[in-house]
Amino acid sequence: MSEQLTLYTAKICPFAHRVELALAEAKAGYTRCEIDLSNKPEWYAPKVNPASKVPAIAYGGPQTSPELPAPESVKIAESLILVEFIADLYPDSNILPKDPVQRARARFFIDVVSTKVLPAYMGPVARGQSFEPFWEALDALQKLLTLGKTYAVSDEYTAADIAITPFLARMEVWMKNDIGAYKAGEGIKAAAEFFEGERFKRLREYYEAIKGRESFKATFDENYIKEKYALRFAPMRQQVQAAAAAKA
Amino acid sequence: MSEQLTLYTAKICPFAHRVELALAEAKAGYTRCEIDLSNKPEWYAPKVNPASKVPAIAYGGPQTSPELPAPESVKIAESLILVEFIADLYPDSNILPKDPVQRARARFFIDVVSTKVLPAYMGPVARGQSFEPFWEALDALQKLLTLGKTYAVSDEYTAADIAITPFLARMEVWMKNDIGAYKAGEGIKAAAEFFEGERFKRLREYYEAIKGRESFKATFDENYIKEKYALRFAPMRQQVQAAAAAKA
Repeated sequence: MSEQLTLYTAKICPFAHRVELALAEAKAGYTRCEIDLSNKPEWYAPKVNPASKVPAIAYGGPQTSPELPAPESVKIAESLILVEFIADLYPDSNILPKDPVQRARARFFIDVVSTKVLPAYMGPVARGQSFEPFWEALDALQKLLTLGKTYAVSDEYTAADIAITPFLARMEVWMKNDIGAYKAGEGIKAAAEFFEGERFKRLREYYEAIKGRESFKATFDENYIKEKYALRFAPMRQQVQAAAAAKA
Repeated sequence: MSEQLTLYTAKICPFAHRVELALAEAKAGYTRCEIDLSNKPEWYAPKVNPASKVPAIAYGGPQTSPELPAPESVKIAESLILVEFIADLYPDSNILPKDPVQRARARFFIDVVSTKVLPAYMGPVARGQSFEPFWEALDALQKLLTLGKTYAVSDEYTAADIAITPFLARMEVWMKNDIGAYKAGEGIKAAAEFFEGERFKRLREYYEAIKGRESFKATFDENYIKEKYALRFAPMRQQVQAAAAAKA
């Protein structure tokens, strides 16, 4: 591994966080370039990712300043593709299990994150909707956790765990701080349901194990997320709740 | 490779077709079990796939009759996960490139199939909608084809090609036979656009290369698809066009 790797990322973004976790797990050396998502630099879309999203990686070619990525470097986007890319570059990281059946189970877990958990995730926090669809998605995920194992498919922390980690971590922040478009107090109630109730006991233990990892501690800045989420979701509560009151 | 592998599939289904292509490319021995999607056997959901969809694989355990899958076998679902599973079981098949960058490019191509092409695919044939969004999705896919290479990312036929093959093949059938919810004649016109026009020249050449492969010939039954699609989509034309006429 001597090729240069530049990661274009943003601390706020859960998708970019996945790739930072993978790089931390792989103990990969890389250049980190923070992109301000509310004010993206002009060079970003044309030179790095035409979709103008983070995360993206520029891989190979000469080491340059991140703002001037070399034309010879390969530009790769999409968080799950990047996690598998890092797993492929660093097979000893165990980000993907060696056994084909375990790999398939990890991918099935990721598929449930993508098709069930994420579509339900923004409902309460960004739209003030009921928590129940989100809880049901978390139920489905919890059911997939392998009995007696620390992580989703084994005692190794894999791509499956990486896929959900940033969302559980951000969920804890918005719930415990009651930040969201839902009514005041509902985040606190939801936090009690998740962090104290019986329903999510297994998923909570799983999440606690994740939080103990060095890769998590090195890549998650709780205070930063709390501050940014307060700026982003507090105005949504006023809007959504005013609209609901006007309707009633 | 001595573990038994049973594939639950349906000739009509493009997602199941992907897995048949992967198995054919890998020259894998397996037991094929056709599931009648319009009349699914009662044992299928509880014993094989709780989501009750094809494709699914039962892998390992003792060889049994497909209707009685052994509890010891691992049950795996979702077409793209199964294609990667077969790639992992048969690394020499080259279904996934060895090089991490090429693997990432194959996965990016698959992502465009999933997020752009498939959402647009059913518009004309099942809902009588304009062809343009579908053409634009095919434009995006065509742009990803590597210049000077036979297949999507190289001269090898990979998971990227497997992901789109069943849809191009079915598209040819419904277009050339003018089967669909669109107005009579629009399929023929669309076939001319795709198979004779300048716009899709590169994608058409790519598709012709795919059709030349043994794996394709062994897994695609054009007459069967034509017959089934006529039964399925012809009534949709009457409905959709009658509704459009009533509105006008």
